[in-house]
Amino acid sequence: MDITHRLARYVIESEYERIPEAARREAVRSLVNWIGCAVGGASHAAVEHALAALADYSALPQATVLGRRERLDVLHAALVNGISSHVYDFDDTHLRTLLHPSVPVASALLALGERRRISGRDFLHAFIIGVEVEARIANAIYANHNADWYITGTAGPFGAAAAAGKILGLDAQHMAWALGIAATEGAGLRQMAGTMAKSLVHGRAGQNGLYAALLAARGFTSSEHGLEGPRGFAKVLGRVDDVGQVVEGLGETYEIMLNTYKPYACGVVAHPVIDGCIRLRSQHGFKVDEVRRVALTVHPQALKLTGIKAPESGLESKWSIYHSAAVALASGAAGEHEYTDASVLDPAVSALRGRVDASADDRLRQDEARVSITLADGRVLDCHVEHAVGSVDCPMSDADLDIKFSGLAKAILPAEQIKRLLGLCWSVTALGDVTEISRASVPMQTPAGRHAA
Amino acid sequence: MDITHRLARYVIESEYERIPEAARREAVRSLVNWIGCAVGGASHAAVEHALAALADYSALPQATVLGRRERLDVLHAALVNGISSHVYDFDDTHLRTLLHPSVPVASALLALGERRRISGRDFLHAFIIGVEVEARIANAIYANHNADWYITGTAGPFGAAAAAGKILGLDAQHMAWALGIAATEGAGLRQMAGTMAKSLVHGRAGQNGLYAALLAARGFTSSEHGLEGPRGFAKVLGRVDDVGQVVEGLGETYEIMLNTYKPYACGVVAHPVIDGCIRLRSQHGFKVDEVRRVALTVHPQALKLTGIKAPESGLESKWSIYHSAAVALASGAAGEHEYTDASVLDPAVSALRGRVDASADDRLRQDEARVSITLADGRVLDCHVEHAVGSVDCPMSDADLDIKFSGLAKAILPAEQIKRLLGLCWSVTALGDVTEISRASVPMQTPAGRHAA
Repeated sequence: MDITHRLARYVIESEYERIPEAARREAVRSLVNWIGCAVGGASHAAVEHALAALADYSALPQATVLGRRERLDVLHAALVNGISSHVYDFDDTHLRTLLHPSVPVASALLALGERRRISGRDFLHAFIIGVEVEARIANAIYANHNADWYITGTAGPFGAAAAAGKILGLDAQHMAWALGIAATEGAGLRQMAGTMAKSLVHGRAGQNGLYAALLAARGFTSSEHGLEGPRGFAKVLGRVDDVGQVVEGLGETYEIMLNTYKPYACGVVAHPVIDGCIRLRSQHGFKVDEVRRVALTVHPQALKLTGIKAPESGLESKWSIYHSAAVALASGAAGEHEYTDASVLDPAVSALRGRVDASADDRLRQDEARVSITLADGRVLDCHVEHAVGSVDCPMSDADLDIKFSGLAKAILPAEQIKRLLGLCWSVTALGDVTEISRASVPMQTPAGRHAA
Repeated sequence: MDITHRLARYVIESEYERIPEAARREAVRSLVNWIGCAVGGASHAAVEHALAALADYSALPQATVLGRRERLDVLHAALVNGISSHVYDFDDTHLRTLLHPSVPVASALLALGERRRISGRDFLHAFIIGVEVEARIANAIYANHNADWYITGTAGPFGAAAAAGKILGLDAQHMAWALGIAATEGAGLRQMAGTMAKSLVHGRAGQNGLYAALLAARGFTSSEHGLEGPRGFAKVLGRVDDVGQVVEGLGETYEIMLNTYKPYACGVVAHPVIDGCIRLRSQHGFKVDEVRRVALTVHPQALKLTGIKAPESGLESKWSIYHSAAVALASGAAGEHEYTDASVLDPAVSALRGRVDASADDRLRQDEARVSITLADGRVLDCHVEHAVGSVDCPMSDADLDIKFSGLAKAILPAEQIKRLLGLCWSVTALGDVTEISRASVPMQTPAGRHAA
């Protein structure tokens, strides 16, 4: 089976006009969400450390570090924008596979765009195709893969390579080589949960895919069967023999339609619990010190991925359903500010976290949860969340995305600039040069409390 | 078990004075062999393509591309020197694991050395420690790993990170983070055999390890148990639960002592067959068209790794024991010139290749083979090779390494310069700045038939 070559042909033959309006619309929503995350994450310590480490090795001011004044060469801009846009664990999710579709594709494309001056339409087209390629590969491998690997680090380079290769105008042979190189670059272990290395895995996915496309464009060869070969990606990283499904109905359906956006800055499997806690808090108006006990019932995957009882850092707390419930009850929110080192150490949050229990029930869906709170006066408050906010069945509205974007960007950019940047993202298809978006994300003046770069 | 931290402590506490002279000597031999491979590979198409792809993104002339006039930033120099030094499949081998020890460590260190001005002694010390770390990890995982992965692409980043971290003066915590980042960067699929992407995997190993050390040096965090954690490197990529052996007897033995150097530019498992063919050819002086049939008996691994019957390119022919036997009989040699596209297409070689049969016998060692040649006049000539030239039991002498070096470098450098470069490598510990070696590899004048860069 010639899956790698069939994927390559799909990428080079795809035409923007044949992509349904609804898919294009979802791609724009994905871009809005992703740019907000990248700008919001721009001053995170992980980004500061990465910039400090790379400062001596990237002198070419080719591409924007979103939300900052530094400029880097294209390959490093893709890396750092990948780190910043994922570091809050606030970016998008393809729920079936837990792939984060935008980070590899958008970070590679936007950086390349500053060198190649691509139109907003070409950008969106390549973005949709890149997401299609990586999500289809993710669909084929996730079952035997996700316990060990970050699927965005492994499948993501295919998406970035396909998107960048589309912009570079690769023919079928060179595109197949680009996908083959992407196949052999897949990496990223779940052991990194709760550390900066998790965001690095996601940043490398875009950078690696960009390398793959740039090398293949110059004739650098790879296996013709990088995806499906006997020692290829699907077999080795996915323990899957038949990846025929990757090309079934190609061009008829669009995986971008299944993209979802997080209202909360933590592992997506904890979201229904947060919904339930916020709902009970606003319905009953109790105080934190009245909460005697919190009992969560969740899908088993939620305990597997977010089961950290006593997190020790902000990044680790994103993988604690106990911390998520505690901050949701304490502050009615679970944004980037609730997953900082300070929030983890807050005595009220810490005490409440210790009073949360969780158990798994495999009859629940992944976006479903039950929350039961026992108050000091003996009252028991129950809540059943059928579909978490931000899931496919209960999506965030465009207005929700605007609010999330502004909340993320306000520490970095003044309100006027946020409005302008948001406007450019929503109207991306009208832009003659997608670089306008990158440029508009650069802080023009220094907001209070933030040092000039 | 705190294996990652124990490894980190070993790296930072190691002292040059306590490393036995024999280990230092073997490290110098490794350097001589590796520099020769890098210079020899400098004009390979894979290097030309990589330089063309990267030219637009690396403007900082920080470090030498060995054997060329171009200069790149440190991270890209490490990548390209990794590609060039491995592209002929002529570099060193840690036979037990099939790790190529020098490529990740030397390419990272030498590039970093041009920025940090390190002495030859510090270079050699960091090199030995880097090889120790990666080879010990390779020992722990190779059994369940090598059928799918290139172990140099996966274990190699640990070695490069340890060596670069030693030069950067990391403390134990930062060194553990560097090793943790290296753990999550491991990549490289055997599906890439016979293509340029194989050399890319080996180049990325050094570049990835260098990234890991540079990031960790600035406080970029990763798992404290990247190697031994439940979702860490050994478990996921090696399917190994207990990696205690990685730190057993650390500082008492040196894996560099087990390094071997190839006399032939192809997969090491084909080497005993080449020895046998060359021996029979020189003993009996028959002509190629007198050879009616060649029967090879080899270790099963040799057929698994070099079983390509009819290779289509020079790079693919390195993985054909049939091609190796044919060129050895036809020309009495198996250097880089016998594994070119032209050699693959040569009608005499191609015809002879078709008359070679091979069978596996698991009673043979990996460095052992039997060759039986039937001539047109009915004579049968037999040869039993007990230990291939270049194996631990039959090592290449220093003089052999000089001859190999000169043969590789002569297409790139004039004879006087080769002599000078070789001298610098042999006396590396006397150098105040290891950059002297890199500089001495740059072609000062254009040898006949080669264009100036």
